[in-house]
Order: sequence, then structure tokens, then C-alpha cells
Amino acid sequence: MSSNEYSPAIIALTTDFGASFYVGQLKGVLATLAPQARVIDLTHEIEPQSIRHGAIVLQDSIPWFPKGSIHIAVVDPGVGTDRRLVVADFDGRLVIGPDNGLLSALAADSPPRRIVQLNKPEYWATRPSATFHGRDIMAPVAAYLANGGEVEALGDPLQTLHPSPIPQVAYRYESDLEIIEGVVCMADRYGNVLTNVRIQDLPALTQPRAIHEWKLVIEGLENPHPGRIDRREISIVNTYGDANSGEWVALIGSSGRLEISIPNGNARDCLAGGLRRFHMVRKGTIDPSSSFSR
Amino acid sequence: MSSNEYSPAIIALTTDFGASFYVGQLKGVLATLAPQARVIDLTHEIEPQSIRHGAIVLQDSIPWFPKGSIHIAVVDPGVGTDRRLVVADFDGRLVIGPDNGLLSALAADSPPRRIVQLNKPEYWATRPSATFHGRDIMAPVAAYLANGGEVEALGDPLQTLHPSPIPQVAYRYESDLEIIEGVVCMADRYGNVLTNVRIQDLPALTQPRAIHEWKLVIEGLENPHPGRIDRREISIVNTYGDANSGEWVALIGSSGRLEISIPNGNARDCLAGGLRRFHMVRKGTIDPSSSFSR
Amino acid sequence: MSSNEYSPAIIALTTDFGASFYVGQLKGVLATLAPQARVIDLTHEIEPQSIRHGAIVLQDSIPWFPKGSIHIAVVDPGVGTDRRLVVADFDGRLVIGPDNGLLSALAADSPPRRIVQLNKPEYWATRPSATFHGRDIMAPVAAYLANGGEVEALGDPLQTLHPSPIPQVAYRYESDLEIIEGVVCMADRYGNVLTNVRIQDLPALTQPRAIHEWKLVIEGLENPHPGRIDRREISIVNTYGDANSGEWVALIGSSGRLEISIPNGNARDCLAGGLRRFHMVRKGTIDPSSSFSR
Repeated sequence: MSSNEYSPAIIALTTDFGASFYVGQLKGVLATLAPQARVIDLTHEIEPQSIRHGAIVLQDSIPWFPKGSIHIAVVDPGVGTDRRLVVADFDGRLVIGPDNGLLSALAADSPPRRIVQLNKPEYWATRPSATFHGRDIMAPVAAYLANGGEVEALGDPLQTLHPSPIPQVAYRYESDLEIIEGVVCMADRYGNVLTNVRIQDLPALTQPRAIHEWKLVIEGLENPHPGRIDRREISIVNTYGDANSGEWVALIGSSGRLEISIPNGNARDCLAGGLRRFHMVRKGTIDPSSSFSR
Repeated sequence: MSSNEYSPAIIALTTDFGASFYVGQLKGVLATLAPQARVIDLTHEIEPQSIRHGAIVLQDSIPWFPKGSIHIAVVDPGVGTDRRLVVADFDGRLVIGPDNGLLSALAADSPPRRIVQLNKPEYWATRPSATFHGRDIMAPVAAYLANGGEVEALGDPLQTLHPSPIPQVAYRYESDLEIIEGVVCMADRYGNVLTNVRIQDLPALTQPRAIHEWKLVIEGLENPHPGRIDRREISIVNTYGDANSGEWVALIGSSGRLEISIPNGNARDCLAGGLRRFHMVRKGTIDPSSSFSR
Repeated sequence: MSSNEYSPAIIALTTDFGASFYVGQLKGVLATLAPQARVIDLTHEIEPQSIRHGAIVLQDSIPWFPKGSIHIAVVDPGVGTDRRLVVADFDGRLVIGPDNGLLSALAADSPPRRIVQLNKPEYWATRPSATFHGRDIMAPVAAYLANGGEVEALGDPLQTLHPSPIPQVAYRYESDLEIIEGVVCMADRYGNVLTNVRIQDLPALTQPRAIHEWKLVIEGLENPHPGRIDRREISIVNTYGDANSGEWVALIGSSGRLEISIPNGNARDCLAGGLRRFHMVRKGTIDPSSSFSR
């Protein structure tokens, strides 16, 4: 369905700036240096300074953009320290950002073809500020790439990125139970909470309803009775239509990621406090050695 | 004043997604499938799941866009159920959205030239998610249209849309009083509340100040004295300049719609609770049979 | 690094509309009248009706846009009164807005080459609303300019703009102390507060660490002990990395503007109440007559 005509370069922006004038200044630099490029707001509503939130959003969103697209990603609590800036090539999409884990969930899905550290100041603004490298370094670099520049010119090659802030899913058995251990990573605008478990992390589901075999168990929820630990078993459903209003459910969301929700409610408030753990459990029904192979 | 040169296709977005990464994913699909199109954010701040809010915004905003523009409208509490998706042609502007009433206020002003149900999956993403049809169905359809595709190819023709969630204005007489009955529909960012009454719903105003002949009466406002019903008479003015700070007023706003405001205050909080009714009243000064004809 | 190819006209928007449908309607007019122009959201998050906030944002942001860019600036509490609308040329960037001080901080840095009052209704929408001149007057004027129209055609020339809402920095001596008097102007999204003092307002800093010679003193902060006046001395640092979490600091931010911050805290809440005054002080170390010359 795609067009085959000449297309302008695309520069997409993912930041924790909100809709502030900091975005405007960055766009002003792009309009000056790469006037032909099409600039797209992917989102500016990353939770301020949350590398984990940013990493999930990039992992779930960048693949929807075309090959050849250029991305500026700014969630950068270490700006002004000696953290590195990099550009990495994920299956033809170039992502520019700090090497603080922000790009590392992407890398887990699609090992970068090349990574270059941005250490050639001749491609930056003349005197970069100490606190706004998005405008002063990343935007000029993105413009250079949009104008046809070469990734390799921008600095020295790197072999690896900073480790991902998203823990890996773990698997274990207990007597005849299969158990998958995950963590809650972030909430979306609707109060759904997204986890590190994705559909490809689950044993092959031989039929659509097979997801019902699993229960999700989460402990330590906020509870009005101090001293009590609240443990909750949550059903896993196929669509929100299968859930009752106000009842906790889990399902595989539109990015293939397990999310926990309270339809017409807000799961976010109950899950405050960082990387909360949960597990999924079902009776082992088939040979374990094949069950967890993918 | 308009340019006559070749213009790129326009795809404008009206959603309740906020500025979230869900918008970003949808834009990624458009950038992939219709790289020539110009994508415009009309607004993403529709109150989540409020079809009524979305319907008013579309009715007041779509006509400002050029003929030939393509619109994606997503306020879709029924996603994943069997509600239909449609594309409808409103005076040359193509609007894609769920057939849940969202497009029906537009239709009241400008009966659609044609309506097509989106029921040809070959124009959609290969395996649409259950919860994000904006990205997986509506965006590919918009891209197809932006690339020159035909509306008729997308599915079967329909005769009518789902009824509008906006009640019609009603008229009645009581002894020598003319009475217009309306409802409050939504609040805007400034705390003004917009109603279903528009300037064309009023009897022809023979002179600009004639609007002063009307009083607006609204009952059951929030009141610190429980058990008492608060009834308020509100003056109708021509501009905010005619009102005192903190005093309730009503006026015809920039979209030709009657709005209720508290200058430097917030009328929204006093009008919580859905489709609140009010009426406008004036002494009948002319022959009723002509007064309400338009 | 900039491209030399033909570039489309740029129209950037700075308003207090939030991400509301009012922005969408304005963009619809631009898409109709100037379909070739590239429309950029600089920001819509100016504090509603705050001319001072808008003036600072324009002063710090417009220079990042290319010469030839066109800007619509709407913070317009006087809409519908007889305040003037103008277009002014700031070093090749054309800014359209109300003449209420919004453009005057820009003018302090770069005296406008020309100012024209918008008083030729033939360049506006046919019947402008009383409350939305951004859509009905400024957008058609911007489109006219984007299509190659002449500034001079739009109305009569003016000599000066309305005075700036940003007070000038003041200087004085007290025995052997140098004192700079400033005011807090606005808060940004991160809870940093921006002041009217900019790096060029400081005596030439002979070495980077020289800023440490200054202390910032601010009085009357919010205090849990009524009746007590809270006076706070704040260190001035080079980067946030030099500050401890939760400790007040001041530094020169990315726009060259002195800002006051509480790293990992929020300085905004402590500085409520308009144009709060502060002063910077250091021991006079060099000849005063040269110290404050620039």
C-alpha cells in the first residue's frame, strides 16, 4: 500500500519535554538545518526522567515507522555528566539518544547493525549548552543525517549499548506449575499498566482461548488495612469486552504486551512504587521442555 | 487567498489519545503508507471515551479544513465489539471513524454525500489488534485515500449513521413567553461550557443587541446548602468585555455556539453531571408563527 | 549545515490554547489558505492569559527558527477590545500577534525592522468572530505572507510596540557590594523558575567559575511559620551536577537565562504570586565603572 515516490526525510521526536517550548526550540533548529525534513511528534509525554518508560515506548513504537526514518530520543537525567550520546541503527531506523539504557529495549528485539558514539563536535551547535543536548547536539546530528550525511562520520563505532532497564522475563517450575515472572513497567494515559511480558514470551498458545489457562498473581497492592498484605489473582482475558466494569483483568494489548487494567477504573494508582513484580501461573499441561521453548 | 498549486493530501487527527505514544504509532503507520501526506493534529484532547465531546468538536472544526481533506476520528469505547467503522463524505471532507454517533452531529449540518462501511480487510493492517483500530484499520484506510484510492472500494454503502448523541434544541410557548430548551454538552480548556444551541437555532435577531432580550435559566447547580435547589438566571451578552469578572454570562462563541462562562472563573465545575438542561426565555414580541421559523 | 534547496514557508504557532480544538481550527484555516506551508507547533502551553510567560518564551525561542519564518503568537486577554494586532519583523522573522507586550521582549533584543498594524480587513476572514482572532485574522494574514504577500500591504506602519511586561534588570552598589536586582518571571514544566536576568546582564565573567562569586538572595518565600519572613541565600552553580538533591540552586540555563531550581524538587510552588523580586550580590572585586559596563 505504500507510495513509491520520492519521500522527504522523517525525523520523529520522543522526549519527556511535554508540549513545552523546549520542543519548539528543538524544532526551530531542525527547521533551520533540515528544512526539507518532515518532523513528527512521536510523543513528548514520557514520564520525566523515566528511562524505563522511554525504553518501553521506543520498543513498542519505533518499528511502526518506515525504514530510513530518523529518531531523536531524549530522556536524559545524566545530561551534563559524562554519559555518552549515540546513534544506533535498528533495522534501518536511526535512533539518536543518550546511552543510558533508553535504546536498549529496542536493541533486545533488533540488535543494532551499527552504533556510533557522537564525539565529533563539528557536527553539533557551536557552543552546546550544558543542559539541552537535544537541541544543541542531537538535533544538528539528526539534520545532518536527514540531509544525507553518513552515520560513520559522526564518531567512533561502539560494540554495545548500556544494559536495558527492563528486566528479562524469568521462567520456573514448581511441582506441576509453570510460572512466568514479570514486572510492571509503566502506566499509559488510560490507567492501564504495561509489563515486561510480551506475547512472544509466552509458551506457544495453541488456540486463542488458551490464555485463559493462566492466572496472574500480584502481591502487596495498596490496602486500606495497614499491616495486611493484599494479594490479588487476576484473570487473563482476550479483550476488554470479556471483563466486567471495575474488575481487574490482564490481557495482551495492541503492542503485543501484557497489560493489567481495571476497565472504567485506574490500575495505575494501585501499582505505584517502581518495578513491581508479579507472576503468571498455570498447571503444566504439556512437556515442560517444549512448553517454554520458542 | 488560497494557493492553486499542487497540494499534498491532508490527514487530520481527532482523538481521545492525549499526546501519548498511541498517536505516535498511528503517525508511524501514516508515514510508512502515505509518506507524501501532510498529517495535522486537530486535537487529541477529546475527553476520554466521550462521544458527545468528540461529536461537538468535529461539528465545529471539520468545516475549517479544506475540501479533499481526510480525517481520522477516534473516540471509540466500543472498539473490539461489533460496532461498525465507516468513512463518510461531508461536503468533500472524508471522515473515518466508528459509527457510534461521533460523526452524526456533522451529518446534521451537512448530510453525508456517501457513507461506506469499512468491511474489506484487504485495506487494513494484516492482523489488526482488538483494541487499536485507529492504528490498524483507520490509518491504513486514510493512507489509501491519501494515495488516491476510491472511497467505494473500502466497503459496502450505508444509508444512515448512528443517531447523534447531541439532543435537538426544543421550542415551546408558555402564555406570552418564548422558550428554547437546550443542554450543556462539554467544557473547553478555559472552563467555558458549550451547549447544543447555535446561532442558527435562535429566532432571527433583527439587531445585534437583540440577544439581550433573552435570559438563560439553569437549575440544580452545585450548592453548599444541601436540600436547596440553586436556580440561576444568566444574562446573555455580546462579548466577554460586557461581563464583570466572576459573574456568570452566556454568549455566542467563536463557533457560533451558545456558551456559558464565568469570566476569570470556571463554569465547568458547577456543571458536572452529563447533559444538564437549561432554557432560554424572552417575552414574545412578535407573531410566534414567524418567530421560530428559520 | 543547512540545506540550500527550495524550502517551504514555515508558520510556527505559540499560543495559550493548550492542545485543544482551537489549535485544530486555526490549522484548518492555514491548510485551506496556505496548503504549501509547513506548520510547526512551537508551544501551546503558555500559561493562559500570561503575557509575561509568552513574552519570555518568544524571546528565548524565536531566534532558533530560520530567517523568513512566520510566527503566530496568541496570548490575548484583550481580544474583542480595541487593542491592536500587529506584524513585526525581528531580524527577518515575522511575528504576528496582539500589541499587548507579548512581542516586546523580543524587541528589546532585536529592534524590529518594521512594524505594521493589521488594519486592512480585506486580508482577514470575511466576518471575524469577536473572540478568536488567531483563527479569523492572524491565520489568514500568516497564510497571505506564506504565499509571498508583502508585510506593508497589511496595514499602516507603526513606530513602537507596547512596553514590555518584563522589568529591566537594575544595578546598584552598597559599600563594597555589587548588587543586581531581578525578578522571577515564570516556571517551566520541570518546576524551574526563569528570571529576567540573562548572561549578558552579568558583568563579564573572566573565568567560568567566576559565577560562584555571586550569591542569590530571595525573600518572603512560603513558610510554615506565619509571621516569619523566610529569606533564602542560594548558591549559583555551573550545572545541576554541582547541586545536591533537594537543595536550592541557581544557574544559567540553556537559553542563557538565570533560573532557580530545586533539583528533584519543585521551585515553582515556593515562588507563587507574580513578579517576585530577588537580588544577586558579590563583593566588588574590580573597578565598579568597568564592572557593570558591557
